Amino acid sequence: MVDRPRPRRTYLEKTPLPEARARWFEALEAAGWFRPVAETVPAKEAHGRVAAAEILALRPVPHVRASAMDGIAVRASATAAARRDRPLSLRRGVDFVEIDTGDPIPPEFDAVIMVEQLIRGEDKDEGTVEIHSSAFPGQNVRPVGEDFSAGQLVVPAHARLSPEAVAACLATGNVQIPVIKRPRALVIPTGSELVPPDPDRDLPPDRYPETNSALFEGYLARWGALPTVHALLGDDEALIREAVESGLKEEGHDLVIVSAGTSKGREDVTASALARLGEVLVHGVAMHPGHPVVLGLVQGKPALGAPGYPVAAWITLDQFVRPLLERYYGCPLEAHQTVRGRLARKIYSHLGEVEFVRVRLERGEGEGEEGYLVHPLPGGASVLSSLLGADGLLEVPAEAGGLPQGSEVEVRLIPR
Amino acid sequence: MVDRPRPRRTYLEKTPLPEARARWFEALEAAGWFRPVAETVPAKEAHGRVAAAEILALRPVPHVRASAMDGIAVRASATAAARRDRPLSLRRGVDFVEIDTGDPIPPEFDAVIMVEQLIRGEDKDEGTVEIHSSAFPGQNVRPVGEDFSAGQLVVPAHARLSPEAVAACLATGNVQIPVIKRPRALVIPTGSELVPPDPDRDLPPDRYPETNSALFEGYLARWGALPTVHALLGDDEALIREAVESGLKEEGHDLVIVSAGTSKGREDVTASALARLGEVLVHGVAMHPGHPVVLGLVQGKPALGAPGYPVAAWITLDQFVRPLLERYYGCPLEAHQTVRGRLARKIYSHLGEVEFVRVRLERGEGEGEEGYLVHPLPGGASVLSSLLGADGLLEVPAEAGGLPQGSEVEVRLIPR
Repeated sequence: MVDRPRPRRTYLEKTPLPEARARWFEALEAAGWFRPVAETVPAKEAHGRVAAAEILALRPVPHVRASAMDGIAVRASATAAARRDRPLSLRRGVDFVEIDTGDPIPPEFDAVIMVEQLIRGEDKDEGTVEIHSSAFPGQNVRPVGEDFSAGQLVVPAHARLSPEAVAACLATGNVQIPVIKRPRALVIPTGSELVPPDPDRDLPPDRYPETNSALFEGYLARWGALPTVHALLGDDEALIREAVESGLKEEGHDLVIVSAGTSKGREDVTASALARLGEVLVHGVAMHPGHPVVLGLVQGKPALGAPGYPVAAWITLDQFVRPLLERYYGCPLEAHQTVRGRLARKIYSHLGEVEFVRVRLERGEGEGEEGYLVHPLPGGASVLSSLLGADGLLEVPAEAGGLPQGSEVEVRLIPR
Repeated sequence: MVDRPRPRRTYLEKTPLPEARARWFEALEAAGWFRPVAETVPAKEAHGRVAAAEILALRPVPHVRASAMDGIAVRASATAAARRDRPLSLRRGVDFVEIDTGDPIPPEFDAVIMVEQLIRGEDKDEGTVEIHSSAFPGQNVRPVGEDFSAGQLVVPAHARLSPEAVAACLATGNVQIPVIKRPRALVIPTGSELVPPDPDRDLPPDRYPETNSALFEGYLARWGALPTVHALLGDDEALIREAVESGLKEEGHDLVIVSAGTSKGREDVTASALARLGEVLVHGVAMHPGHPVVLGLVQGKPALGAPGYPVAAWITLDQFVRPLLERYYGCPLEAHQTVRGRLARKIYSHLGEVEFVRVRLERGEGEGEEGYLVHPLPGGASVLSSLLGADGLLEVPAEAGGLPQGSEVEVRLIPR
């Protein structure tokens, strides 16, 4: 611990949140990072992937005029005389053929009568059938292209592929489809005070288990990236530089997240490591938790330094990493559900800083979605349990400087 | 096509939907299928898994009294004299030690002053520091167990593990955790009129690409099962029986879904195959789409026959497979978001049958969540595109027999 003199630079910037994001994204845009690469994969393996281009029907569905029911195919005009009190007899092979759901309808017929509507008693000639009502042309007939016509849009570009979209691709002949390549993300956990979580060793008093890499890994995978977690590094600028550089260059990762070391303490070397390898666009964002974030560009790729406190790391994911990947893919990667309610107690926040408050929702007296009582949860950026127990996130605007009890607020639900 | 005489049994049951589900679940409950097996996995690999038991903190977090800031550790009582206009000088090693965020606080100190609040000009003695205000006991100190106390509940049993829950497990010493085993699901696509989707062959007029297995596979994986898709089988009862039996027995699958062949046509052999292997509890549910569903039990495991039309298959997933897995895991597997709105046009439905209508939502004139205009989408159970284009699902109750235009309805959003 604690005996070297402290370097002088002790303040971070307080770049406004929207400006920080815009500055980073503009630099990445200029570097061409938001022009994603496509690859072709079997549709069956494309669940959850994002379409790189419009997917059009290569053939109509159905591709033939098909029966929608089990029954008999008939000429509608030949059934006109059938009445409830005067059944009409039809001859197999002449007036009708039996047909199953999905069977192509022979060209000479234009309607299908359901099997449930046929009269064929035990004593009847098996070669005939009686009907008690007439059929109309097209009855129980699926026209060609009823579901998809040839050339119809099946999946728009930049749509995330649901199971039903995959099924629709297969149905329309799109057995191989173009999807956007998943960005490979390298997560580099750092911190001399950290150790890898290990059940077999007691934790020394000055060591903490490294847990943020698991947080990053989980969300990166959920949002369509391919995360790799690097071995834990100490607060060693040269080692961090080496890991970032070889990660982006030799190993071909598309983005890198350096976890922790982003503040301005003696051991906070992330910003200087990234600055020496490339460009640091933002160091310090006017938000809490998550102030000491580093937004950089190395080899034309995003290099992000995330604060070490777990809630701050989570806010960094939410405010920078998710929007980054959403812009890369051109589509939302997480459902956004908001509810409205009233604040159960006053919230303090710094004027000029966005405050992200974890809240618990209590169903209040009001009606519908508006009726929540919104309880801010105690605990700072270090209190991971405040995130686990939270139903949602409340964003106090930078210009508000706090919110009085009873304020009407909008809460974004945290998806689980 | 079509020349054998048709067998006589042409009607399915119309078991009410809640009764069908209850009958199936009761039989599975009696067979012990809802008593899931636990397994221990590394927490790092447990993203999205469901906890098999309560996970308690094995140690407090933080496990030592730690500094919340970079700064100096002091005795609060020794700082009482500091004033804005009368700075107090403190001596390194005697009155303070420098300390970084997360460092344990030496027992003789009880407060931390942030580095930003220290005065240490270039001309000052490096061995001293000046402060302009006093500290209070506990200032910037994280007490032991601030985040989690030892023994505290970290993750309740039957909770699905979010990335932050995984991080919390690792932080509290739960490096290996008990999770519920993922059920292995065998999907058996059937239908003599089907062919595997193949880009290199033209589709014959009487053949369709088999696409429902991809739909099942996608949702089963999303809902925490481990799906395997069997080779496509024809409408051959013996082959289907063999596949179901060896799938559940030798291959050890926990549930089986036979796709298609569930109606009462000549080629619909799924129900009789399942009946000969075990027990068919329900054949035919009073709902549309999805009427010809088979709910069975084979070797004490769920054996489900799903209708062949894609929208009907999707409804079967939604109404039977998802609830089955949610009951197995004891937790919701899909976010349920509903909105309210008014029907843009009349809906017809059969009295006594639940009708599931795919709808598109248009933001109407009203305020907030209540202001949607709800457009029912055309197309029957065969029209997969009606599902792709839908925003939500509207359930017309069995006793309603349709809904007039302008009805106030609740729509469940389809998660993408």
